[in-house]
Amino acid sequence: MAAIDLSSPARSSPAPLSPRRGSLHLLLRRPRRPTLRCSLDAAPKQAQAQGPPAAVAAEEAPTARKECYGVFCTTYDLRADEKTKSWKSLVNVAVSGAAGMISNHLLFKLASGEVFGPDQPIALKLLGSERSIQALEGVAMELEDSLYPLLREVSIGIDPYVVFEDAEWALLIGAKPRGPGMERSALLDINGQIFAEQGKALNSVASRNVKVIVVGNPCNTNALICLKNAPNIPAKNFHALTRLDENRAKCQLALKAGVFYDKVSNMTIWGNHSTTQVPDFLNAKINGRPVKEVIKDTKWLEDEFTKTVQKRGGVLIQKWGRSSAASTAVSIVDAIRSLVNPTPEGDWFSTGVYTTGNPYGIAEDIVFSMPCRSKGDGDYELVKDVAMDDFLWERIKKSEAELLAEKRCVAHLTGEGNAFCDLPGDTMLPGEM
Amino acid sequence: MAAIDLSSPARSSPAPLSPRRGSLHLLLRRPRRPTLRCSLDAAPKQAQAQGPPAAVAAEEAPTARKECYGVFCTTYDLRADEKTKSWKSLVNVAVSGAAGMISNHLLFKLASGEVFGPDQPIALKLLGSERSIQALEGVAMELEDSLYPLLREVSIGIDPYVVFEDAEWALLIGAKPRGPGMERSALLDINGQIFAEQGKALNSVASRNVKVIVVGNPCNTNALICLKNAPNIPAKNFHALTRLDENRAKCQLALKAGVFYDKVSNMTIWGNHSTTQVPDFLNAKINGRPVKEVIKDTKWLEDEFTKTVQKRGGVLIQKWGRSSAASTAVSIVDAIRSLVNPTPEGDWFSTGVYTTGNPYGIAEDIVFSMPCRSKGDGDYELVKDVAMDDFLWERIKKSEAELLAEKRCVAHLTGEGNAFCDLPGDTMLPGEM
Repeated sequence: MAAIDLSSPARSSPAPLSPRRGSLHLLLRRPRRPTLRCSLDAAPKQAQAQGPPAAVAAEEAPTARKECYGVFCTTYDLRADEKTKSWKSLVNVAVSGAAGMISNHLLFKLASGEVFGPDQPIALKLLGSERSIQALEGVAMELEDSLYPLLREVSIGIDPYVVFEDAEWALLIGAKPRGPGMERSALLDINGQIFAEQGKALNSVASRNVKVIVVGNPCNTNALICLKNAPNIPAKNFHALTRLDENRAKCQLALKAGVFYDKVSNMTIWGNHSTTQVPDFLNAKINGRPVKEVIKDTKWLEDEFTKTVQKRGGVLIQKWGRSSAASTAVSIVDAIRSLVNPTPEGDWFSTGVYTTGNPYGIAEDIVFSMPCRSKGDGDYELVKDVAMDDFLWERIKKSEAELLAEKRCVAHLTGEGNAFCDLPGDTMLPGEM
Repeated sequence: MAAIDLSSPARSSPAPLSPRRGSLHLLLRRPRRPTLRCSLDAAPKQAQAQGPPAAVAAEEAPTARKECYGVFCTTYDLRADEKTKSWKSLVNVAVSGAAGMISNHLLFKLASGEVFGPDQPIALKLLGSERSIQALEGVAMELEDSLYPLLREVSIGIDPYVVFEDAEWALLIGAKPRGPGMERSALLDINGQIFAEQGKALNSVASRNVKVIVVGNPCNTNALICLKNAPNIPAKNFHALTRLDENRAKCQLALKAGVFYDKVSNMTIWGNHSTTQVPDFLNAKINGRPVKEVIKDTKWLEDEFTKTVQKRGGVLIQKWGRSSAASTAVSIVDAIRSLVNPTPEGDWFSTGVYTTGNPYGIAEDIVFSMPCRSKGDGDYELVKDVAMDDFLWERIKKSEAELLAEKRCVAHLTGEGNAFCDLPGDTMLPGEM
């Protein structure tokens, strides 16, 4: 079967037509030429059904950029399909680190329709590495076997300039983990280079209004590097994921107050996705009332609450033996859904976004987690009417100082001269070292 | 925090009240007494919110069977919550092997509402082992951090007599993998004992109409053992999962015909979840037409198709480095949804069920995958009007013979005398050895 036999002649033949909406395809690594493509422009006739579609395609046109196999070679016309008549246009979602554990949860959520809705067909563009390309094929096989009707295209590749083509969402999960003895500045540099390259690729080939969510750590500064390398994409479109921190903070407040977690709202994470992050109990609410009216234990709020949120990942590793993957994927889903659905009246969500023009007095030109609302159009606005007190402001300034130091440390990657690393103490979150 | 500090005094105190609908709790392993329980009958008052709820509970009553921590100690009254007024009653879903990879995908799908629907609150009862209890706590933490509004209870335990209490669904995923050099009869015996015990536990404490889906292999015979040990539960309620085979068969037919997989229907897997399984291309349809009219390559259908479906798991292991987990979880979701939603007109699905009374002439008193339809009430009926030819029947008889041999081999576990193992050649599926 072409789907599983990588050595089949059909697969190594060049294939015919440029990619277009309505086809499923895989971008496969090949020696010296990482991505070839093919697609069939019409469903094979009955007679053709006796041989793999790719074989037919190969005879027809030699100018392909895409190599296909399996059901991902199939083309179809959504308009000819009765049940899909009410569907929206296909949305292109690129995911990096697609062979990793977080993605392994996330991709199936994206394909199932729970993120973008039951009338939103989806194309997944999976970015892997030389090392992970076989695993990525395994992921594609499992996606095939899942028969998700909304999943209309899957492509795989190792070149972001190909994989990010026409991406309307880019979920940047892949990052190098910190090796033993590695300085934090070295980690910033290594991952910064990845995100600089991916920013350039997005700038070249992605949709002009692509929304980018950076998950790979250190995610705030990676997001800054990415947006600086993508000057043709609005800086406002880049996010650093702090939603898992927000979710964990809500859970801990619920736990302390003895209520179910759906009673906690208006939870802001301010600042960096690091131990300087600021879960904001001044503005958060429980059952619509200020947290401080419900939880009288100020010492707990000021001392324990933030530490507990920060340490959650480390405790999980102790118990589970590895970093959170499922709940991280859930928080990415939450982050996307918060942008494509209107924010409930009176509530908000947290996301790390570009600070230029912010109303709080936070330094400009960094990526900082702040409270946001959305009309559900993929865009957002900062919430203006939040309270501030000395305790909150002091902590926000500390996280701001850290992000400014990180920025100086990656100046060579943002086009702002020579790097100068004067990072404060190590503030990576447990499990993200 | 009580949620994460297992040594906190609050957690080791006995806790107060018997479990009831509307509370979240964890059944934790303790020396000599694996499961204690607690719950709070009312939300803590403001003053109590200064200490962990469990501490308050511990002072009140010493006769608890349940130990709680974290947000799972919280109680609430669904009826008092405006948004839940249209919700159905809580459904109790027990999952064994809950710390494994398949469950790690499945549990979050169950919690999200995509399986039972957006108005169905859910209680998850997770069965682990001594070895996996810490990992199960990690799973519970990630479920907490995911803030799924429909997930109203989570309990953990290692005693099926406690975990299966009032279960309305039991998803039996956990099974021992085959060790190096282990005879297949030994594997049948080891896993058979697990499923005999779990059958007894279901018989004692589960809902009288619990639906049981056996995933742990060899799943058909495990399901038979389970139902034989649960005489007070209708044998019809026990299923062996062949849905992943069905999904893979659909995908391979689509691939061969050059159509998208949603065009394939009426796909039956007959028989054992092993290499003797029979994907039925005589009755399956593509775009509403018999497969043999669309795919003229009879040799492929007769020789290659079945092998490709069987080998899929093995190929995946080669690429991905481990067994399918995500797509297995998806197929469990599909299996449940096929029972709680009406089957589309003219279509059917496959599931391994008890053969007694079947209209096809298949031996009675085994668990055999057959075509079924459901009204969406959790129950099913066998499809009667399927075609049969010599080629199909001959293969069905071979799978039947295998299951009868497996049954003789576990007679000591089904209460039918002494086991006699005359198993034919090794037919375990790749990846399930």
